[in-house]
Order: sequence, then C-alpha cells, then structure tokens
Amino acid sequence: MEYRRFNNTIVARIDKGEEILEKIKEISLLENISLASVNALGAINEFTVGVFNTEEKKYYANQFKGNFEIVSLTGTINTMNHEFYTHIHLSAGNDRGEVFGGHLNKALVSATCEMIINIIEGIVDRKYDENIGLNLFAF
Amino acid sequence: MEYRRFNNTIVARIDKGEEILEKIKEISLLENISLASVNALGAINEFTVGVFNTEEKKYYANQFKGNFEIVSLTGTINTMNHEFYTHIHLSAGNDRGEVFGGHLNKALVSATCEMIINIIEGIVDRKYDENIGLNLFAF
Amino acid sequence: MEYRRFNNTIVARIDKGEEILEKIKEISLLENISLASVNALGAINEFTVGVFNTEEKKYYANQFKGNFEIVSLTGTINTMNHEFYTHIHLSAGNDRGEVFGGHLNKALVSATCEMIINIIEGIVDRKYDENIGLNLFAF
Repeated sequence: MEYRRFNNTIVARIDKGEEILEKIKEISLLENISLASVNALGAINEFTVGVFNTEEKKYYANQFKGNFEIVSLTGTINTMNHEFYTHIHLSAGNDRGEVFGGHLNKALVSATCEMIINIIEGIVDRKYDENIGLNLFAF
Repeated sequence: MEYRRFNNTIVARIDKGEEILEKIKEISLLENISLASVNALGAINEFTVGVFNTEEKKYYANQFKGNFEIVSLTGTINTMNHEFYTHIHLSAGNDRGEVFGGHLNKALVSATCEMIINIIEGIVDRKYDENIGLNLFAF
Repeated sequence: MEYRRFNNTIVARIDKGEEILEKIKEISLLENISLASVNALGAINEFTVGVFNTEEKKYYANQFKGNFEIVSLTGTINTMNHEFYTHIHLSAGNDRGEVFGGHLNKALVSATCEMIINIIEGIVDRKYDENIGLNLFAF
C-alpha cells in the first residue's frame, strides 16, 4: 500500500494480496483521520460481504472467489468510543459481469485497488443501538 | 433522521421505517441546499427502482422486498424552476449477495442508512427536454 | 455535453449518443485536470466492461445492449507520463433491475448522464507494472 495526501484528500493504492479494510485502518491511524468518506475501484479475487437480517439482528455472510472487479466501494471512516471505526459496502462484477455485494467483511486485492478518502473536519461517534442491533451514528 | 453539518459536508443517519428520498428533501430544505452530490450505504427492506425506456420515454419500475444492503446510492440534489429536485440511482444486494438497482423511486430503511452530502456552491437548474422525455441539467 | 465548473467541482451533462470516456477526456483537457475523482449516474443503451484475469494479465470484455441505468460509475482522472489518463468502473441495471458491471471500456448514453468531477490539487502519475500487468498509481 502506498498513498499521498493532498490537503484533505488521500489517494491510495492498495496492492496485490493486501486486505482492503486493514489498509483503510492503517491509513486512518497514520493520518489521524476521525471522519471521512471512502470510495474505491479495483480488482479482487476473494471477498466476503454480509447481509443484515433485521429480525434476527444478525449478519449472514456470502463469500466469493474468482476474478472480480470492484464496481462500488462506499462508506465512511469515523469513530466509536473515540477509536477508529469503518463501515464499508462493496459490490463487484465477475467474469460475466454479474454483480454481487453487501456489507464488506473482507476483500483481498488481486491486482490493484485505487482509493479516494475525503477527510471531513468533524467528529461523528457511534453507539450500539439495542433495538436495531447495530452501531449507529451518534451525533 | 439526524444529521450534522461540517462546513459543506453533511453526515446523516436515516432511521428504520423512514423513506430515503423524503429525508434527502427534508435535509435539503432545512439546510437550503441548491446543489450537492449524495452518497450513502445502508440496509433497506423495500425499494422501487425504475429503468427508462428511451423509445417510449417512460419509466418501468421494479419493486423488491426482503433484506437488502445498499451497495451504491449516488446522485445529486439541485433545482428545477428554482425549487428542490433530487435525482438518485441505487443498487442493493439481497441475502445471496445478488445486486439489483436503477433509478430510485422509493426506499424504506430497515436498520440504518448512512449518507454523505457534499454541498457545491453553485446553481444548476433543470429543464424538461421533449426529445429525451426527462428533466435534464440546464446550465 | 455541457458542464459548469464551481471552484474545484465540475457538474456535467453528457448527452444522448455520446460516449462517456471520450467526454471525460474532453472535459479534462479543457479544464487542465491532472487529478480528480469521478462519479455519475445516467441511462445507457450499450456498454462494454472488462474483467482482468490476473493469471493471464489480460482483460476480458462483456458487452451489453438494451435499456440500462448506471447505478455506479466511479474512478479517477490522473496522468501517465504527464498525459491524460482515466480509470473508471461502471455498473448498470437492466429492465428487470439486474446489475452488471466491471472495468469501463465504452458506454453510450441513451438519455442523459449526470457527472460530478471533484478536482484534487495534486499530481499522481502512473507506471506500468510488469508483475501485475497494469498501469498502477506511481507516487
């Protein structure tokens, strides 16, 4: 992974074999990011995306392997109890162009991932919501 | 729904049972937004997305129900005849990760929706184009 | 195609029959953009998206025709050897809402395409990487 920061925008390259969420965390800690939006494209060969079952308040994961192109990676970096937190959703197309996606648990880069992080000057923390079963934005 | 504005960026949480397009309108009117780009992720359990038939100049809608994760929500807030207008496309993955989407007509939040609105200091109005059959950006 | 620039943000309308990557290039050259992120929605009736086979280091293309709504168009404008370069991924939903996508090679607008280009004040060049077989961000 390598990146460059230009004012409040970070342009990053995540490399073959690296896991995307780990690298978002690494950049965030190095740059002391407390709030940001994240976007990326790239090529991955293994990823796990979850779908939240709202009745059971539980994530169900789908794992995919093969040659996939990320067509959307969107979400935020913020904090929970003032520590790093990120929440990202991803979708990716397979070799026939069919697209699969959901809540991102893990994605391994197969060629490259090109990411834009827009840092927002502010703080938004998270708090666990018992009714929903998720850590929600707490303003 | 709750949000916080940091300079020209709004971070919003749209809550269970709320409709996303209504909340974009509510935030826009409260914050006097005339031009902005919009991105979000989230979980929804009912949504309607349309596809424009360019020959017939007519939208055909597909309705989906179940546990879905928004993997892309993208578009703009601007104006038509100087009044609020928004144009959003959305895609979402089901419990097998299969992704469906199109022009957003309606989406009901099932858990949470986390939205970033980037306000642009400028004005872009819209005008109905008879040849296309849509309200297009008019500069 | 028509656009308006507001400080470092460009709002563009790409018109029926126009090819999206050509118009990104045209705007970039007119505005001397060296680095930017790109997002769009729109309606297209023909597009070609590739998937990179990492073993063979070769793109395989899938072509789609019909009424499609762009649900994600994401990527960057930057430079390679100090000249214009763009790398965009796209996904789009068909008349049943099924979404297909990958690395964008070509997309013809059928109704309109609404694009936001966020100019970043900086330089990121590209360099061909023999191990990967792609032109990667070179910082």
